[in-house]
Amino acid sequence: MQQLTNRSIALKSRPVGMPTEQNFEYREAPVQEPEAGQVVVRSVYLSVDPYMRGRMSDAKSYVAPYELNEVISGGIVGEIVASKSDLFKAGDKVIGMLGWQLYNVVDAKLVRKIDESIAPLSAYLSVLGLTGLTAYFGLLDIGQPKAGETVVVSGAAGSVGMFVGQIAKIQGARAVGIAGTDEKCAYLINELGFDAAINYKTTKDLGKALEEACPNGVDVYFDNVGGSVSDAVINLLNDYARIPLCGAISSYNSTDGDMGPRIQSKIIKTRSLMKGFVLGDYASRQQEGLTQLGKWLSEGKLKYEETIVDGFDHIIDAFLQLFQGTNLGKMLVKVD
Amino acid sequence: MQQLTNRSIALKSRPVGMPTEQNFEYREAPVQEPEAGQVVVRSVYLSVDPYMRGRMSDAKSYVAPYELNEVISGGIVGEIVASKSDLFKAGDKVIGMLGWQLYNVVDAKLVRKIDESIAPLSAYLSVLGLTGLTAYFGLLDIGQPKAGETVVVSGAAGSVGMFVGQIAKIQGARAVGIAGTDEKCAYLINELGFDAAINYKTTKDLGKALEEACPNGVDVYFDNVGGSVSDAVINLLNDYARIPLCGAISSYNSTDGDMGPRIQSKIIKTRSLMKGFVLGDYASRQQEGLTQLGKWLSEGKLKYEETIVDGFDHIIDAFLQLFQGTNLGKMLVKVD
Repeated sequence: MQQLTNRSIALKSRPVGMPTEQNFEYREAPVQEPEAGQVVVRSVYLSVDPYMRGRMSDAKSYVAPYELNEVISGGIVGEIVASKSDLFKAGDKVIGMLGWQLYNVVDAKLVRKIDESIAPLSAYLSVLGLTGLTAYFGLLDIGQPKAGETVVVSGAAGSVGMFVGQIAKIQGARAVGIAGTDEKCAYLINELGFDAAINYKTTKDLGKALEEACPNGVDVYFDNVGGSVSDAVINLLNDYARIPLCGAISSYNSTDGDMGPRIQSKIIKTRSLMKGFVLGDYASRQQEGLTQLGKWLSEGKLKYEETIVDGFDHIIDAFLQLFQGTNLGKMLVKVD
Repeated sequence: MQQLTNRSIALKSRPVGMPTEQNFEYREAPVQEPEAGQVVVRSVYLSVDPYMRGRMSDAKSYVAPYELNEVISGGIVGEIVASKSDLFKAGDKVIGMLGWQLYNVVDAKLVRKIDESIAPLSAYLSVLGLTGLTAYFGLLDIGQPKAGETVVVSGAAGSVGMFVGQIAKIQGARAVGIAGTDEKCAYLINELGFDAAINYKTTKDLGKALEEACPNGVDVYFDNVGGSVSDAVINLLNDYARIPLCGAISSYNSTDGDMGPRIQSKIIKTRSLMKGFVLGDYASRQQEGLTQLGKWLSEGKLKYEETIVDGFDHIIDAFLQLFQGTNLGKMLVKVD
């Protein structure tokens, strides 16, 4: 293997509130030779996701916190550039949870081969990856929308939300999205077939806008954001509503306690169900989800959108943009 | 049938905040002769319950609001004093959802015969009635405690709570009760076998007291009260915790919006489940519940407690006492 220079990004200090560049450290070092059973993966696309903010803190959560002074990890699609494993040869495209670096030298069992003839490489980080599967299992297993019911999704133009609305439509439900710009709302309605979309930033009375968009109330609320948006949706729950709790992005950088109206009385009155979940809860059903998502994709029933930021040096930028609501669909970084 | 004089209590106006005597009207009228198929039931024990506060408002809820100027209804155990039905004869003891009056003249199908040889009449309004069944289904169907897990119940010395803790113990779980007086806490531990009990009114740091009482965290939180007590318990949830939401008595008379820390982030991080329920959701399984509760009662595994207020004129008093936390176990009024 020719001598390659690696670059990586480590967590230097734990952010308080919104992370800044100062919380991270860029490093350079030679790429090590792979040992027996290892492969060298050149990063092509790198996924930045809101859940990573949680891992940067050391609070107890569903995934272990990132270690200080260690390279940050996440979903990465790449190409094998050297292999000492029978599983892969140079040129193979793979996906895995890898480090934020130009090259990862890892055990071959930690990556999975992907097929560029089925979908573009980047799709394996969205519709055929974690975000598609998250929408699939959260909506269908917890939300269980029925034909004619109303599904509201917050963060609707985000990487998970846009699949939630489309899968709701496939199930015959009414899909109502909440997003943060008029462009996103137009996209949800015109391109993805949502029945209605609300710009929560410019709408003066979110409760009233939701009532108009949901004349029959809310049966499923797929929640990506938490905060006051969720307060307004919960107020409109129908009896036996279901709330898959996927994210609370509005509170991830909150340092003020995240106060709001208590929801228990409403949950009782409507006998609703609220359940937090992570994709890992459905590990044993991953293939089922990928097969169904691939089928819908090939039938043209699922569209996906990406916001691609170019260059390894812009990873932190791209990550921080997640919290400014600028991205449409999955936020990715093209590394090379 | 001899001419009897009836007395009844109607809802005169909808309470704002805590109800007062002025919201109710006492009436007197002759008891009507039963028609074919009807029975006349003399009230013996009358149940007052927190959920009735909700019915006094006209907000949308799981049961229809009480109508203004109509007699208030609830669970009543009584004796048949006249029957024009083949189903009952004078002297039979029955239970039903009947009006707050000395005598109810109703279709015989609206009441169910009960057997004084199995348990005292009043037990059919608690352990062998709505509150026992509510504890049974909420804890076992939603909470699903496993041996060795920790179950916390708020309102633990209340009519539902004391069964929750005892059934948790029967399942091999650790039972921790939260109640409002030292006497209640002592009762929970010494008489009902709870592992720990916390007086939330006198404990300076409820969070710390809960941590000490729940060294392994909280797996099931059976919530009867809502409010800041629930905030503290939710803070200690283990992964995959379950929260049967039974009541939010702390908010029923609230007129200030019931604000608190939002719980969604914690529910996500722990992938917990929260579900509101009412006993009516389990109507088809009622006999299963009554059979099991009766079995545990006969085996001495379930104890129950009643606070009995004497006299029809003290019904409103008894109802209001529910919100002052003075009752131990089921609050009943002995009518005659």
